[in-house]
Amino acid sequence: MGDPLGVGPEVILKALGSREVAGKVIPIVVGLPSVMRRAASLVGVGAAIKFLSMDRVHEASETGVIYVISPERLLRVVGLSQTGRQLRAEDPASGLLRGKVASACVKEAANLCIRGETSALVTAPLSKASLEAAGIAYIGHTEMLRDLCRCKDTLMMFVRGRHRVSLVTTHIPIGRVKKVLTRRRLERAIILTRRGLELLFGVPEPRLAVLSLNPHRGEEGLLGCEEKNVIVPAMEIASQKGARVSGPFAADSFFSRGEWKKFDAVIAMYHDQGLIAAKLIGGERVTNLTLGLPFVRTSPGHGVAEDIAWKGIAEPQGMMSAILLAARLAGTVRLPLKWD
Amino acid sequence: MGDPLGVGPEVILKALGSREVAGKVIPIVVGLPSVMRRAASLVGVGAAIKFLSMDRVHEASETGVIYVISPERLLRVVGLSQTGRQLRAEDPASGLLRGKVASACVKEAANLCIRGETSALVTAPLSKASLEAAGIAYIGHTEMLRDLCRCKDTLMMFVRGRHRVSLVTTHIPIGRVKKVLTRRRLERAIILTRRGLELLFGVPEPRLAVLSLNPHRGEEGLLGCEEKNVIVPAMEIASQKGARVSGPFAADSFFSRGEWKKFDAVIAMYHDQGLIAAKLIGGERVTNLTLGLPFVRTSPGHGVAEDIAWKGIAEPQGMMSAILLAARLAGTVRLPLKWD
Repeated sequence: MGDPLGVGPEVILKALGSREVAGKVIPIVVGLPSVMRRAASLVGVGAAIKFLSMDRVHEASETGVIYVISPERLLRVVGLSQTGRQLRAEDPASGLLRGKVASACVKEAANLCIRGETSALVTAPLSKASLEAAGIAYIGHTEMLRDLCRCKDTLMMFVRGRHRVSLVTTHIPIGRVKKVLTRRRLERAIILTRRGLELLFGVPEPRLAVLSLNPHRGEEGLLGCEEKNVIVPAMEIASQKGARVSGPFAADSFFSRGEWKKFDAVIAMYHDQGLIAAKLIGGERVTNLTLGLPFVRTSPGHGVAEDIAWKGIAEPQGMMSAILLAARLAGTVRLPLKWD
Repeated sequence: MGDPLGVGPEVILKALGSREVAGKVIPIVVGLPSVMRRAASLVGVGAAIKFLSMDRVHEASETGVIYVISPERLLRVVGLSQTGRQLRAEDPASGLLRGKVASACVKEAANLCIRGETSALVTAPLSKASLEAAGIAYIGHTEMLRDLCRCKDTLMMFVRGRHRVSLVTTHIPIGRVKKVLTRRRLERAIILTRRGLELLFGVPEPRLAVLSLNPHRGEEGLLGCEEKNVIVPAMEIASQKGARVSGPFAADSFFSRGEWKKFDAVIAMYHDQGLIAAKLIGGERVTNLTLGLPFVRTSPGHGVAEDIAWKGIAEPQGMMSAILLAARLAGTVRLPLKWD
């Protein structure tokens, strides 16, 4: 469900009710029944909505129905009854409640995937500030899922058709990128990207492009030495392990000149470097895919967008693409996914 | 002329010979005659080329002619005769020679503008490594011109139609951005951008957007504190001085959602943040414009592109746009430009 005061609940229902998605999946929404009911009356869902408790999840079997799972434990955790009071942003406790609800939903949904009861996980946006208010020590889904699944490491990849961009570093201040970007980390990112393309997209021996960290590829060391000291050595190691890797490329012209079209994926060094391009090229349809988990997990590229939430105006295209990509990928792989 | 082994000489002649540009300007190329002659025979220029010495620059008066200025001093500096030996990349001294030639051309051309003999300066790409090999302590044109003109500060702006992006920091390693980005620097960037829009583009009270440094606008401090400590305070000061400034905006979605269309210019915090978007939106036609100089100066958005240089295949669109923008802007302003 994502953050209950974000656009999650409404874009989920809009997406599941859309002609493009309806009938293609058996959707199980993990969330607060009261919130999902309000969202349903806001967007006017055509499909039937069935509320199930966690122990009856196996009853979800029809493509024409939207199932909503209401884990009793979650309701107790947040102290809200099923029909309970509405969460309001003005409520002083709302941040805490929102964070608790949203993170509990992620946990329950991940467990469904881990137990093999569902084929893939699609997440709606979280509010990082609410997670913090709730004392949840994660900056986002990806980090939370990595720990829930006891994974060594995970990687964010943004996908729109054949445009695929992995991020070596993600939700950190730009001032920390230099420190966090190590040879080992980049090497793992290359390996995970390669494996993801083989495993999920069926691309054998994928061609990978690596972007430079500094402007103009560091301009022979004049604009930074990480290209020489970190990026090239990591590429060499990955290459020795069989990865087909090229670069580092200057990021500013790499996308605009269409260089990315020569590669199966691009590996960006930090959040905005990859995402400015991924969102400009992919538009609202860009999907965030997590590599390294035992199951398929996607989410839309946008955030909670509180300013437009609960007005019925949020566009579901991002969620539709996230659901369709998850369904397509989950349909072609054997679970649990093996990354090593 | 730019770097003699880059694409500069050929794109200059192609652009000046193009239907879009020819007849619209009286072009004076400052460069080595031997290099420009070779470029002319490579691209097959239709227009007449006249070689002039520096003291006869006033004779350049026809729009149908391409004038090439060959400063004697420059020829002595580099130790090349006018018909002289060709520069070759394999030559151990080529970096040094290239840097000396290119920087001497910039200096001579800037002096023509400073003396009011020419209306605007358009520069072809330099090789930063060659500048360094020649012992020139500048990372690029903008810095060189700032000192030649004794300017307090200058600002790079990338322009394509109504898409305009200023860069607060430019040719520095990403690891230094955090340090270099001060309140004072950002405030000056806002003021210069505003003044540039008023002075050069005739936009009264321009609306300016400021991007955040960190992902997700720093996410309330979780992903960095520069938004709160540097960017917002600088915006407030600029706002008190009358600038119409909004933000900071998360850079990844700002461009893809078309938010930039609501503003007359966007102020980006670092090189790739601004340029990935400017080049994706503006394509090959994006033009680099320097704000803060006493004259109009533009250049194409691309680099020396040595890999494709001197093969006759370099596309002149970037140079054409740079020349046309310089001509358009210089035609509407009173020189020298006053920035304070």
